[in-house]
Amino acid sequence: MSKPKVFEKPIGVKDYLPHAVAKMRKVERQALDCMSRWGYEQIVTPTMEFYDTVGVASSTSDQKLFKLLNNRGTTLVLRSDMTAPIARVVSSLLKETPFPLRLSYHANVFRAIEEEAGRDAEFYQTGVELVGDPSAEADAEVVALAIASLKAAGVERFKIAIGHVGFLNGLFEEALPGQPEAQESLKAFLLGRDYVGYREQLRSLSLTEPVQRELEGILRLRGGQEICDQAMQLSEDATAKSAIRHLCEIWDVLKAYGVCDHVLIDLTMIGDFSYYTGMTFEGYAADLGFPVVSGGRYDNLLTQFGRPAPATGFAIKTTRILELLDGEEEEQPERVLIGYDAKGRSEALAEAQRLRAQGAIVVTERIEAGDADGLKACREGFADVVTFIGGSKGEQAK
Amino acid sequence: MSKPKVFEKPIGVKDYLPHAVAKMRKVERQALDCMSRWGYEQIVTPTMEFYDTVGVASSTSDQKLFKLLNNRGTTLVLRSDMTAPIARVVSSLLKETPFPLRLSYHANVFRAIEEEAGRDAEFYQTGVELVGDPSAEADAEVVALAIASLKAAGVERFKIAIGHVGFLNGLFEEALPGQPEAQESLKAFLLGRDYVGYREQLRSLSLTEPVQRELEGILRLRGGQEICDQAMQLSEDATAKSAIRHLCEIWDVLKAYGVCDHVLIDLTMIGDFSYYTGMTFEGYAADLGFPVVSGGRYDNLLTQFGRPAPATGFAIKTTRILELLDGEEEEQPERVLIGYDAKGRSEALAEAQRLRAQGAIVVTERIEAGDADGLKACREGFADVVTFIGGSKGEQAK
Repeated sequence: MSKPKVFEKPIGVKDYLPHAVAKMRKVERQALDCMSRWGYEQIVTPTMEFYDTVGVASSTSDQKLFKLLNNRGTTLVLRSDMTAPIARVVSSLLKETPFPLRLSYHANVFRAIEEEAGRDAEFYQTGVELVGDPSAEADAEVVALAIASLKAAGVERFKIAIGHVGFLNGLFEEALPGQPEAQESLKAFLLGRDYVGYREQLRSLSLTEPVQRELEGILRLRGGQEICDQAMQLSEDATAKSAIRHLCEIWDVLKAYGVCDHVLIDLTMIGDFSYYTGMTFEGYAADLGFPVVSGGRYDNLLTQFGRPAPATGFAIKTTRILELLDGEEEEQPERVLIGYDAKGRSEALAEAQRLRAQGAIVVTERIEAGDADGLKACREGFADVVTFIGGSKGEQAK
Repeated sequence: MSKPKVFEKPIGVKDYLPHAVAKMRKVERQALDCMSRWGYEQIVTPTMEFYDTVGVASSTSDQKLFKLLNNRGTTLVLRSDMTAPIARVVSSLLKETPFPLRLSYHANVFRAIEEEAGRDAEFYQTGVELVGDPSAEADAEVVALAIASLKAAGVERFKIAIGHVGFLNGLFEEALPGQPEAQESLKAFLLGRDYVGYREQLRSLSLTEPVQRELEGILRLRGGQEICDQAMQLSEDATAKSAIRHLCEIWDVLKAYGVCDHVLIDLTMIGDFSYYTGMTFEGYAADLGFPVVSGGRYDNLLTQFGRPAPATGFAIKTTRILELLDGEEEEQPERVLIGYDAKGRSEALAEAQRLRAQGAIVVTERIEAGDADGLKACREGFADVVTFIGGSKGEQAK
């Protein structure tokens, strides 16, 4: 193994320079503020968790977890999402707090392997969990909040696609009873949005023509509430029908929120987290090929931590959103450069303090006695340059 | 190795519940805002760095580094401070940016082993680095900024002790020439603030009486600028004298900043980072037995990353400061609970949107048709409870 060069950092992780940090901080603040106004309170959990608890409960596959050993020889993981850690907190520190619990977070999460696909091994998420409410109302609340948070963060053009794991589970069990492998392979194609592969796989399964037509037909099940009516005709399976009814209720609530312009029903959608049990959703922004938000219902995860409860939530991919916000600038306070020599020091530093108290950004620089030009190198970017030299104040051209 | 219980987290790491997070976020924001007004711009670096670069350059001993392997078999570390990562960025992404560079950060850092001493294995720091300025003026700027940042964060009563590694280096080399082990053992006692141990060690070294008196005398070298005069008498060593002169200059600048009330010179002080080359300082708050801030000059670290430059900076121990701020509360916006049934839904959700736009915190809850008492369980903590039932709005007693 050759040694990395001194100035290198690991593949898949990033440095964020001041301009990018300002943007990220703004997105973070605006999204968290929005979540706070909806009654979601922020929590912070450790970067490291036990592999045997949070690591195993997370939906991240084993090979994608960053693992390390602590001094006692116990395996730890770098958290791969915030849902499992929050489930742990809900079941321990918050175990006496009554449901429903509304919690928010902004956190970096870690995925190994992804680096090789050119994806980030560490990235930031801003999200919520609504724990203890099984209703379609709760599902609609988190979808509406995801929309409000994206807007608050400055994302203008986006669509949220909503699906339900129960629909595909029911439909596939009806069409391919007792063939879990065939079912899983079809789901894998849908998860990867590989519709050509899905069709080819269907043909390879030697299904009856009506069944094949039915399973091909779901690829067209994308649109408004009318999709629910069409889907109801497609399957007699009770699980599938119940899923459709739930989605239909969610749509009704989203209509009341007035956000249906941003939503479409997509029954081919499978959330990428194995712990999802009901509604799932993903948000796509114009011109970006990957989701900017994903979420869904996970009614079994809390059971693994000893406090069974239904739950639903989402995570905005904060670092991905930054790409959408290029060119948007926060208004910057005035920047002033103050140069001084030994004699002008007290006056210069007092002036700096005064200006900072007024909200200005002030950089102070010692220059040699009388050398008013000593500041030349760093005048760029300053609205004002002031010198205190030999005891007298002077304004300078930039 | 027994498996951890499902609700457990690793030793040495913490969950922060909403009340603590609100406090931590406030400290973070206020300190970063203060640093920004002094012209320091925020950067974010990855949690993981190469062991062979940042890991080795950091001043954290090898056994205190959390190590892990990436998929290519290269050893990574969880960053143990922000100084080495920032040195890497200054030498790579920012290598064309002229000095002086003023950078700030708020970040979690990691130390293994510490967990066994009941200390945090993961904690937050908020700090700055001023790169490219070798002057006493620059050292004084970071000390004055540390004071301003602590005040901005709400810490009222604290003292900053300033020392200089050159003084003890010079003094000990003069008193114990060619005896590096004896010198190091004395420094270790001073670093641990074990003055009894220091005196015993002195006696064991069979020094001449004047030398022993001199080395015992430094324990009394704590106070204002007069300490510099006393220290000047103590040693003829050029390195020691140059260190004292530098401290004396820093004191002059701190006087101009008007912050000497918060500062004392302590010539027994050794920074806990091996890369310090000049002035070092630590801040102690009333009633806390550990530093709330530490910093110093490190003029050789950047060389390791290929862009030699003098540098000085500090890190506030953000999570430790929280203990000082108990009871201080941010003013909370009004909290409103809105209950609604199917008929009142649209009106209720529109009202929620209106109130949130005004800055209120609004939680909405679906209740069964006509069941105005269905909300009872969660009324606590809400200034207002409003119901939209059967199409009509009602205000409710809390």
